[in-house]
Amino acid sequence: MKTPLLPLPSGFSASGVHAGLKAKGALDMGLVWSDKPAILAGSVTRNEVRSAPARRTERILKGGQAVRAIVVNTKFANDLTGRQGMRDADDTGRVAGKLLGVNPEEVLVHSTGVVGVPIPRPKIFKGVILGVEALSLKGGGDFAKAILTTDLVPKVSCRPVSVGGRTAWLAGCVKGSGMIHPNMATMLGYLMTDAALSQPLMRKLLREVVDLTFNRLTVDGDTSPSDSVVLLANGVSGAKTITNAGADYKAFRTALLGVCEDLAKSVAKDGEGATKLVTVSITGAKNDREAGLAAMAVAKSPLVKTAVFGADPNWGRILVAVGYSGAKVDEFKAKVDLGGYRVYSGAPKAGWSREKLRKILSRDEVEIKVDLGLGKGKAKVWTCDLTYDYVKINGEYTT
Amino acid sequence: MKTPLLPLPSGFSASGVHAGLKAKGALDMGLVWSDKPAILAGSVTRNEVRSAPARRTERILKGGQAVRAIVVNTKFANDLTGRQGMRDADDTGRVAGKLLGVNPEEVLVHSTGVVGVPIPRPKIFKGVILGVEALSLKGGGDFAKAILTTDLVPKVSCRPVSVGGRTAWLAGCVKGSGMIHPNMATMLGYLMTDAALSQPLMRKLLREVVDLTFNRLTVDGDTSPSDSVVLLANGVSGAKTITNAGADYKAFRTALLGVCEDLAKSVAKDGEGATKLVTVSITGAKNDREAGLAAMAVAKSPLVKTAVFGADPNWGRILVAVGYSGAKVDEFKAKVDLGGYRVYSGAPKAGWSREKLRKILSRDEVEIKVDLGLGKGKAKVWTCDLTYDYVKINGEYTT
Repeated sequence: MKTPLLPLPSGFSASGVHAGLKAKGALDMGLVWSDKPAILAGSVTRNEVRSAPARRTERILKGGQAVRAIVVNTKFANDLTGRQGMRDADDTGRVAGKLLGVNPEEVLVHSTGVVGVPIPRPKIFKGVILGVEALSLKGGGDFAKAILTTDLVPKVSCRPVSVGGRTAWLAGCVKGSGMIHPNMATMLGYLMTDAALSQPLMRKLLREVVDLTFNRLTVDGDTSPSDSVVLLANGVSGAKTITNAGADYKAFRTALLGVCEDLAKSVAKDGEGATKLVTVSITGAKNDREAGLAAMAVAKSPLVKTAVFGADPNWGRILVAVGYSGAKVDEFKAKVDLGGYRVYSGAPKAGWSREKLRKILSRDEVEIKVDLGLGKGKAKVWTCDLTYDYVKINGEYTT
Repeated sequence: MKTPLLPLPSGFSASGVHAGLKAKGALDMGLVWSDKPAILAGSVTRNEVRSAPARRTERILKGGQAVRAIVVNTKFANDLTGRQGMRDADDTGRVAGKLLGVNPEEVLVHSTGVVGVPIPRPKIFKGVILGVEALSLKGGGDFAKAILTTDLVPKVSCRPVSVGGRTAWLAGCVKGSGMIHPNMATMLGYLMTDAALSQPLMRKLLREVVDLTFNRLTVDGDTSPSDSVVLLANGVSGAKTITNAGADYKAFRTALLGVCEDLAKSVAKDGEGATKLVTVSITGAKNDREAGLAAMAVAKSPLVKTAVFGADPNWGRILVAVGYSGAKVDEFKAKVDLGGYRVYSGAPKAGWSREKLRKILSRDEVEIKVDLGLGKGKAKVWTCDLTYDYVKINGEYTT
């Protein structure tokens, strides 16, 4: 796998190392370090079952303190590991804090991977040492690779943002391929900036952006107990602190939304076994909530997702999924377009061509649009097709 | 495919014929006839998108009249076919009524198959003629075969029931393999009896029984716009009419529950591409509603279903699915058993064996039990594994 280019914002360094958790030298632990204390915002899974690292992250978010480092292992989720799991996560934070000369609570500890297996403490601790040794200003790409599990490609995005005439930088990377469904962040996501924002404003913004991006993403409808997205802002750019919803805030919001949308789409595109990125857009719903239900039902439907995989022009399944979504539907008013080609408008479109539709469904990116003709509600969701490889990957995951 | 034995109750005859809708002489239309007017109870899909036949069935159920016949075609769902679809369904009822000498509204017209394609009227009408000609007291097996689509085996069940000292008979058959998820009956189901019940009592009973059986069944989480289950009682046995919830009612309820449970399990077992029947039992939930949410989340989870397919001992996914189900979970109180083998009890069970678990998951029937340790809520759901063949079948359905 190629190492991606992920230029880090000023004051950040990172690394990705092989701690011996995975086979054959694969990167399996990642570390991020900020020279200055970074303001933290974050979203943690709403699954009732939460990994020890997810619970620990919640505790640190609640504490409100600035953070300095993140340690990630991507082999053992440390979930369903009993009381020992929290001790293991805390001790990982302690080891990193000791090595980096900071308080353990300034170190976020994240993990993902197989559940129900205790982490191998000596290997993890050794990984922290290796990670600290490897920290580098150019380590963003290695970090982005180290956080992956079943992903086939690293997922990175970055952009500049002008704050009060000064240029700050925003960079992000995520891992996520299966067990992807909203309800808070749906994977591990790391967003770093050398801009500065007041904590309340930054937390409100991240919630908003996560709702419009990572929470509009589904691969298999399974939410993970590990999922977390964090945004660290260390202010090293020297740009003035954004404290209210003015022009600087708007510019930063646009950049953050852009980065998160890039990352969310790249997760859908790299969904386990996926061959196609599928965008589902609903318009004309009674309201946005119903549009969201409808879009998500279509995006989750195994029947729609297998039909897209097989390029089978079985478009009826789309409206059928809208029909059980909870959204109001009048099938005599609804319209359905695939890749801009209308197949249904209150009734099947006379003369629609199976061959043309098959060609549209054979593209790398498929756009499904449904207009319900009932109101102004709209929503967009990203997903992928459901394939043999999804079954293969998940039928053999721990084997 | 072998023709099953389905002895019909007195006064019923049936047939299954090839009307030329499907290829190579496959049975594609079915007909049921009752010598005497039969009291009707029924459940129709709750999908907002409903096939013309489903809407027509609702109208007849609302009318409350007795019925005499059922016509089923299993190639064209007659769904999303615009206003013409209802005319086609009504005209099919008219043709059958004319041939059988009864009112069109005494004829139920059902269909399943591909959506968005108008039915070929001449072939369907010819099929009705063939079906009437072929009616026979021994035609139950042919009918049970004719109603199938992607099913690999016919699904039938029957039992005697003693009413006031007289023996009546109850027989049922269903079709259903994919697009199976509750919300009313989740497939086409036909239940026939020569007992007699008052209509209000019979309707209440069917609702109850459907909730305990067909609504506890999921294959892929997709509900169909065609799904209907009907119970016809013609009273030809001469057993006295059951009008209240006494001993006769109890006996009939037990028989009906048994038949419907047989049929629901056989649908899960024959789920598209399935290699295994999976039973998910939740106990100790805060209440029955939460137990139902938890059981359904586990049964729907693609990650659980692929792990069962691959016999991958990745049991953590079970509790993770319970965690996002909406049910309250305390992972330190929960217990998980697979095929009677405990793997988790507040923490992973020390020394659980991957090899033993792999053997359990390799069986034809897999029982997943979760005790949440929080209350008295319980629920059971039937499902199947998610396999390559599910993807294959649904990626090529119309092709």
